[in-house]
This record gives sequence, C-alpha cells and structure tokens, in this order.
Amino acid sequence: MPPLSNSNMTEVQSDWQERCARRKRVQTESIPPEWIIELPPKSQLNVMDVPRKCGLLSILELEITESDVPVILDMLRWAQWSSVQVTTAFYKRAIIAHQLTNCLTEIFVERALARAKELDEHLAKTGNVVGPLHGLPISLKDQFTMKGLETIMGYAKWIGNYADSDCVLVEILYECGAVPFVRTNVPQTLMWGETMNHVFGRTLNPYNLAFTPGGSSGGEGALVAMKGSPLGVGTDIGGSLRIPSAFCGLYTLRPSYGRLPYSGAVNALEGQESISSVLGPMANSLSGVKIFTKAILDAQPWLLDPLVVRKGWAEDEYRLIHHGGGDKLCFAIMWDNGVVKPHPPLHRAMVLTKKALEAVGHEVIEWEPHRHLEIYKNAETIFAADGGHDYRAQCEGFEPLIQTMSPTTDSHENALDEPLVKGLVGEPYHRTAYELWQLHAEKRELRKSHLDHWRATKSRTSTGRPVDAIIAPAVAYTAVPHGLNTDSFYTTLCNALDYACSVFPVTFVDPEVDDPHPPHRFYNHEDEHIYKLYNSDLFPGCPVALQLIGGTQEEEAVIGMTEIVVGALDKMNEEHRKS
Amino acid sequence: MPPLSNSNMTEVQSDWQERCARRKRVQTESIPPEWIIELPPKSQLNVMDVPRKCGLLSILELEITESDVPVILDMLRWAQWSSVQVTTAFYKRAIIAHQLTNCLTEIFVERALARAKELDEHLAKTGNVVGPLHGLPISLKDQFTMKGLETIMGYAKWIGNYADSDCVLVEILYECGAVPFVRTNVPQTLMWGETMNHVFGRTLNPYNLAFTPGGSSGGEGALVAMKGSPLGVGTDIGGSLRIPSAFCGLYTLRPSYGRLPYSGAVNALEGQESISSVLGPMANSLSGVKIFTKAILDAQPWLLDPLVVRKGWAEDEYRLIHHGGGDKLCFAIMWDNGVVKPHPPLHRAMVLTKKALEAVGHEVIEWEPHRHLEIYKNAETIFAADGGHDYRAQCEGFEPLIQTMSPTTDSHENALDEPLVKGLVGEPYHRTAYELWQLHAEKRELRKSHLDHWRATKSRTSTGRPVDAIIAPAVAYTAVPHGLNTDSFYTTLCNALDYACSVFPVTFVDPEVDDPHPPHRFYNHEDEHIYKLYNSDLFPGCPVALQLIGGTQEEEAVIGMTEIVVGALDKMNEEHRKS
Repeated sequence: MPPLSNSNMTEVQSDWQERCARRKRVQTESIPPEWIIELPPKSQLNVMDVPRKCGLLSILELEITESDVPVILDMLRWAQWSSVQVTTAFYKRAIIAHQLTNCLTEIFVERALARAKELDEHLAKTGNVVGPLHGLPISLKDQFTMKGLETIMGYAKWIGNYADSDCVLVEILYECGAVPFVRTNVPQTLMWGETMNHVFGRTLNPYNLAFTPGGSSGGEGALVAMKGSPLGVGTDIGGSLRIPSAFCGLYTLRPSYGRLPYSGAVNALEGQESISSVLGPMANSLSGVKIFTKAILDAQPWLLDPLVVRKGWAEDEYRLIHHGGGDKLCFAIMWDNGVVKPHPPLHRAMVLTKKALEAVGHEVIEWEPHRHLEIYKNAETIFAADGGHDYRAQCEGFEPLIQTMSPTTDSHENALDEPLVKGLVGEPYHRTAYELWQLHAEKRELRKSHLDHWRATKSRTSTGRPVDAIIAPAVAYTAVPHGLNTDSFYTTLCNALDYACSVFPVTFVDPEVDDPHPPHRFYNHEDEHIYKLYNSDLFPGCPVALQLIGGTQEEEAVIGMTEIVVGALDKMNEEHRKS
Repeated sequence: MPPLSNSNMTEVQSDWQERCARRKRVQTESIPPEWIIELPPKSQLNVMDVPRKCGLLSILELEITESDVPVILDMLRWAQWSSVQVTTAFYKRAIIAHQLTNCLTEIFVERALARAKELDEHLAKTGNVVGPLHGLPISLKDQFTMKGLETIMGYAKWIGNYADSDCVLVEILYECGAVPFVRTNVPQTLMWGETMNHVFGRTLNPYNLAFTPGGSSGGEGALVAMKGSPLGVGTDIGGSLRIPSAFCGLYTLRPSYGRLPYSGAVNALEGQESISSVLGPMANSLSGVKIFTKAILDAQPWLLDPLVVRKGWAEDEYRLIHHGGGDKLCFAIMWDNGVVKPHPPLHRAMVLTKKALEAVGHEVIEWEPHRHLEIYKNAETIFAADGGHDYRAQCEGFEPLIQTMSPTTDSHENALDEPLVKGLVGEPYHRTAYELWQLHAEKRELRKSHLDHWRATKSRTSTGRPVDAIIAPAVAYTAVPHGLNTDSFYTTLCNALDYACSVFPVTFVDPEVDDPHPPHRFYNHEDEHIYKLYNSDLFPGCPVALQLIGGTQEEEAVIGMTEIVVGALDKMNEEHRKS
C-alpha cells in the first residue's frame, strides 16, 4: 500500500483523533458516577495507598480485595461472601485503579454482576460450585474476545470490532465458574514493553505515576498491583507478562507455546508462528498463578483449541518428581547475561535469593550465558520478518504508527535513540518465506545448542542432575520513567528457547542499600545507557523481581520450584524480622 | 540464483551423472559377494517369495526374519538368538530385497555386526539387556544421520556429506540397545509419493515390480514388506509414512508434530515449520509399531530434542481412558472425502472393517467430510511457499530437478498431466513472510473449525462422546504403476490438522470380488483420472490398507484403537475360515 499523501493524512488524522476521543468518552461514561473518587494531588506519584484512603471501599470490600485467591475462593465456596459482593468489591477497586493509572479498556459492570448473581443463585440452589474458579472476578488483557464486546487491542481501526463469540480461554473460564469483569490496556501493536495507544491512552505505574508499568500486559500490571483484580490474564511474546509483573511487583507464569488455549483471542502479527505468543496469569501471590494454571489445564483445553498440548496438570511434575522431589535443588544464577548488566537492586535481589536458598539447603551455582546475543538477534529478526507490514496494515488510513513510548522526545537525558535491536536486525526488510525458513533452521540449532549447554551443567552440580532452574533478572532494571524501557534481553531468551518461567518479587529499591554501581566495561552502547539510567534516588520503593527459568513445558515444576524459592525468601525475611 | 547457461549445464550434467554412477558403484561394492543371489526371470513381477526360494537364508534365518518383533526381542533377551545372528539374518534378507527392489542407500555390514557383537557381549557379561530394543536391527530412512556415514537423501550435491554426529533418534536407539543396520531410499526432494532419485535410482514394489512402493519412505516400504527389516523408521509430511505402508501392506503410525525426536535428521524444506515433518515406525505388525513408539517415548526424548513434547508414553491413554476404556467405541467411516472417490478394493476394505467392528459390538457411523479441499489447498500452498527455491538450491549446478516420477513420459494411457494441486496452488510463486503468516492464520481457523466439526459428532453417537476415531482410506487406490501416484488427499488431511493416525492392512486386491466400479459424477478431473486408472486385473494381490485417524497427540490411543480394529478383523477372518 503506498503511503497516504499529506493532505489526505490530515483529514484522516482529524478523523481518527475524534474517533479515538469518542471511544474514550464512551469508556468514561461506562463508569458508575458513584465510583468516581477525588484524585490525590498531582505531586503524589505513589498511589498504592489510595484504595485504602479514598473512602470508596467498605471495610469488608478492603478485606475481600486484599485477600489471597485461595481465601476468596474458599469464602465463595462456603457462601461467606457472595460473588456479587466479591465482584462489586473488585470492580470498585478496579475503577479506583483506573482513575489513577488508566489501566482499563472495556468496562461492563452490569454484565459482570449479572453473571455473579447467576453463580450465587446456582450455589444457593444446588449447593455446588460451578467449577474451581466459582465466583472469582478475573481481568483480561484486551486480546481475549468476549461475545458482544468490542476487542480494540489498541488499534483505532478496531473500534466497533464486536466479537460474535467468546475466545476459548473465556469459554473455559465460564466453565470454571469465573467472572470476567474488565479488560485491560495494551500498547499499539503489542510489541512494546510499555503501555500506550491512541484509543485509550497511556497506563501508569501505581508505584510511581511518572513510570511505566511495563508492557504489553501493562494494564493488567497496574490493575493487579492495586488489587483491582485478584487474577489477571496477559500474554507474552518477548516479555509482555514478565516485564509488567516485574515492574509492578507481581507473580506470573510464562508457559511454553500451546500449553494454555490462545484460540479465538486476537493478536498482533497474526499467523506468526515461529515464536508464539502465550497467555498466562498475573497475581499478587503464587497461589493465584497456580490455581489459574491448574484450573485451565484440568479443563482439557485441547478439546477446544487444536494448538494446545494434550497434557493436563501433572501433579507429579509439580511435586518435582524429575527434580529429586525438591529435597535438594541446584539453581544457577545468571548474574549478568553478557549483554546488559543489571542495576544494583537486581544484583541485591539475586544475592538475597542465593543466601535464602543456601540457608535452607539448596545449592546455588553460576549460570554461564550461552550465545545470548545470537538467540536474541534471531528472535528479533523473526519478529521483524515482515518488515513491519502487519503494523502498517493495521494503522494505515486510521492512525499514525507509534514510533516511541516517550511522552516527549527528550524526556530524559539518557533516552536511548538507537536500541541495540535496531543494530542487530537492521533496517526494516520484508523477508521471503525461504529466508524465514533459514531463520527457523538457525533457531532450531540455537535451541538444541542451548539445551545441550544446560544438560552439560550436570558436571557442575552435586545433585546428579543438570541445574534444576536458572534464576535471572526479568529485566535489567526496575520500573523506569515512561519511554525508557528498552531491555527485553532477559525475557526474550525464554520466548526464543520456549523455556517455561515465572516472575516473583523479591524486594523494593532501597536508597540506603542500593548505591549507584561503579562503572564497568560496557558490553555495548545500550548497556552503557542502562548503566547511566540508574540513580537509587530516582527509583525508591519500586518492586524488584526475578525470573525463574525451567525447561520447555515444565510449567508445573516451575511453579513448584518458585514456591520453594519464595518460601526460602519468606523464611529469611521472617528470621531477619525476629533478630 | 540465475539458471545455469546451457553450455555449463552440459558440463555439469556429465559430471553429475558420473558422480552419481560412482556413488552407486560404491554401494554395489559394499554388498558382500556371497550375498548376491540369482535374480528371478524378468517376467516375475511379484517377488515376495524370493527370500524363501533363493536359498541364501537358512531355516533359522527364515524363522528369525519371519518372527514378530516381540518374539525376536524375547529370543534376544533370553539369549536364544544372538544379536549377531539376528542382524546377519536381516542383513542377508535386506540385501535380497535390495537386489530385487533397489530399496537401500547406505550399507555398512561390518559396523552393524560389530555393534551386535558388543550387545551380545554385554548381555553375556552382565545378564542384562541394554534397553527395550536390545539387539534388534532397525532400518532408517536416508535422513537419519549416523556419525561417519554419508547422508545423501537423494541429492547428488550431498554425496560425500559425512555426518560428524548421530541424530537424536539414533542416539536414543543406541541407548535402547537397537542395531541400526541399513539406510533406505527416498525420492529427490522427499516431496513425492514415489521413490526415485539420481544417485540411487528407483525403488520398486515387491508385490509388483512395475509398481511403485509409494514414497517418500518407499525404501522402507519395500524393505520391510520383504521382511528385510523387522522395524523401519520413516518420515511423513503429507503421507510419506502412510503411502508406502499402504502400498506395501505394512503398519505405521504418523505421530503428531514434535512427539518423536527429529533433531539432527536432515530434511527437505529445512526450517519449514508450518506443517512439520514427523518420524514414525513401519513394521509388519502393530506390535512393532507400539514397541518402537513406547521405547522412544520412555527414553524422555525431550531431554535431547528441544522440539519434543514433554510427555512420555501414557499407558492410561493407550488403555483408552478417554474413550470409555474401549468397551464400546464409535468409529466414523470416511467412505469418500468428496475430492477423490476410492477404488473398489478400498471400499470393500471399509465394508469389511465396518462389519468386523459391529460384530464385536462397536458402533460405526458415517464421517461427513468437512472443508477437505480448503485444508488441502492451504497445506499445499504452504509447502510451495518458497516457490520451489529450496529444491532448486539443492539441485542447481549439481543435477536436474526431477519433474515426474514416470519412467517414460507416456507410461500409461491415463497418466495425469495436471494434478489437482497445480490448479489449487497455481504457478510457482515465492511468498513473503507476511503472506506465509496469512496462510498460518487460515490454517488455524481450519484446524479449529475441523475440531469443532469433530466435537459436534457427539450428537450422532450412542457413546456420549464424539466419534472416537475416523476410518478412511490412506490413499484412494492400492499401489499403482510407477509415475501414476498423485493422490495425497487422504493423508495430507492429517498432516495439516496434525491428527495422530495409523495405517493397517486389511486385505488384498481380488479380481473375483473387486469389480470395476460404475462411473460416478466426478468431483474434478483428478477424480476422473483415478477412476479410469482402475482395473481389477491390473492390481491383483496388491495390499489394501486403511487409515485410523485420532486426535492431535493421541498416539497411544490411536495404537490402542487400531489394535481393536485389527483384532476385530482377525476375529472375522478366523470365523470366516472356520465356516
């Protein structure tokens, strides 16, 4: 398609801006007026305390929204709380979160409450729950189509795109008794580690509104962090579950390709199958992650989605049958991937985790990075194989393609003009099918080589097994000011190699202990940029999270091993408090 | 690459012909002279009795080579037969088969016997077998690389292509105690349903040397049919395991993508991942198929191959836990796929199977074909997405690209000049990555639609479940004269939809009962061509086989259900003999 002429563009632009503004007004009008709160002063950047202080939520609603998922499910199951109560509580808190961080897209209060009422009636009448998620409100990234609702996914062109059926995930969530109750914001194209589009605008980080919550599942990140949802569902093709989870202090699981049902959800780069996007849960606890994953796998999703692996929840793998029962594990820490050195709070989080694991008898060795940059380059080249044709096709004639997530072009003295990926992938170039096949051949060789590298760690452990899991940063830094998130080196590794992995929060940035690090010999200009970005005064209170990396399709074991790590950290913190 | 000029081509051609002839001579010289037999008269087209009559095999060697796989394994385990004995017996019979059908590529007698001797010594010394395939000779299609051997795969360019490591399958076969002992012939490019290339020539069907054994695993087909190997391994991307198994009267399993380890094997269209080639066993019994599949899955192939599904042999699925324990199954017969009507022997085989299943209490209904031609077109367009670039790249400067499998251009009055696929896919055209992605999106929609169609059969069965399996022809006809195999409609369906499926022989063409069929209203010109091809006098004695189609990654259940079908047929035949 030839580019539009300038005169046409002006017309189209005024049209799209009006179109987007109209849609945004519709969203605003869908908020019940009694749920509008008084906003804190502009100078207040951390808004995490607003739900408790704004007065909209009752004591019971605060209790409900601050309970862990298994507690909520128990209270629902024994009819101590009704689903209408629980859904109302989370809806109100979600609307609070939205007013502060702009995290929502679709708001459909009546529909959600009607569903909750049905579930309450079913329980009252039969004495039985509908399924393992009975009555639980669940938020969904703006890709998971629901019959009768628009799925806009950040594209002006998609306004008015009403779904005539539920995607498979939603179908299964209904079977499980869940209450889908809001959908959440994404960046245009989905291929950013931040969250901004022309229709719904920018999502902010509730720990610091001047910072990004990450992306592309950034709406979920901000919402769940504020406890506006007990359980969110996002997607991940290069870090889109893990970056917002890390930046917002949440737990997540990036499962391997085809483990959880994506069928019927809309997507960017539709039909790109070389490195598949996957969906996963985001929650304030690992128990929420486990409950979601088990519920979906127990529902035999392969009966509805032809791309799903025929393998239900494997309890024995969760019990670490292939990892010596979990009695003594050997973890390898990736202190540094050799591409981008992590900021001091990340280093501290790894030190803490190492100490905690060793204190309870596990072994911790060093991970030796293997062909990291080659793997990254292969993946990024695959994502760009169409030379951007898909993005342009969605935007052309409707809105400009967003070129930066920066609110201004010079938002920070250390803004990175040329991310490393550009140098690796080169200028946009539309590859042929044959050229794409060569990238696949290269990818397979890299995957085999990395697997062999992992297997070879057997000689360095005392367990008789290769390293059980890798512990690494999810991102080289904590949440950063809008427009400055460039790193997806630590996350993309797992998408390219299809390793199942989790993210878990470890601590918060603390200026007392997270001093600026001494300069090192920079790996590349992006490493240097990231080094210069750091200033412990800038990031206080931001969550610091790590990634636990397991093998392909080791979702159950990854959850099991993350529980062990989190348990070890909790124990260490507990002892620290006592002493 | 520009086409070579004519003058260059002549030089190159004389060179490649000499190069191929030289390699063929090396092969011939690798046959132990004492194993050269006197060939039957040229007029004898069916050579199935030659191994028994030629005098090369001892009584014991005949017994060994005509025993079923579990019997051989038992005799090896209890040291009643040594692996050297067994390997020698099969090697001799393989060389007989080769002299009749030209089925082999790599011949390495000394190496195989040395391996067998090692295994015998291990057993004598320790009293233990090395693994579940201890001492069993296994033949491999010419894609499975073995350290130190050439892997030519039908390309003149690949002569001298010595592997410096074993592929993962071979690595696992060694772990299991097997004795890889020959490699078998393929067509140039692998993308033919017959078996001929410039290096090793054409493979013939032992039931009728004027006929093709099918392809691309046609070397295995001819070899295993003659009992020159107890167990062969082939591959399948559009029917390459199933066509030769059907044409040669064998059992096979086409597993779903990534169930069995392909890593390290060479391939055509390297890096094409949209519809993946898979490997599977070919044998004279279903027990051979099961033993191979279970042995490989029990070896945890995902530890060595990053693309393999993390799921071992599921005994409960083999016991049909998801199919009511197998007590009462409902099969749907695909009498006709609406594209190509099967020949009378195939129809008769389906009638026999229906009767046999009903006689033992199972239900049989009709399968309603669903978007068959759309699915086929999508798959064929994907295979041709590079406009033939990969084939040309392998041939250019080394040999001409083969344009027909016909020995002469007018071998048969009904030779099909324009297969339907050409009309569907159009002229060769190199697609872009974006265009390939659109084909993927279409493929996903087709897979989801077909799965829903299958699920909807629940309303037509009496079991409370959707149809348990589909029974269909593997090919619309039995083996045909060289150059005339054009149908892959019945097989490609399963590659495109990734349904696990088996092939099992049912009967033989019998001029007494398989009369020419009355003409029907032809679906298309290829259907008409195939109709005209049939003449029961032409095909007497050819094996007639069917396909059993299960769900994606239902390998265990497919084997379990095929056992039930084969058992029902055996019972019916037994009763027929008695009456």
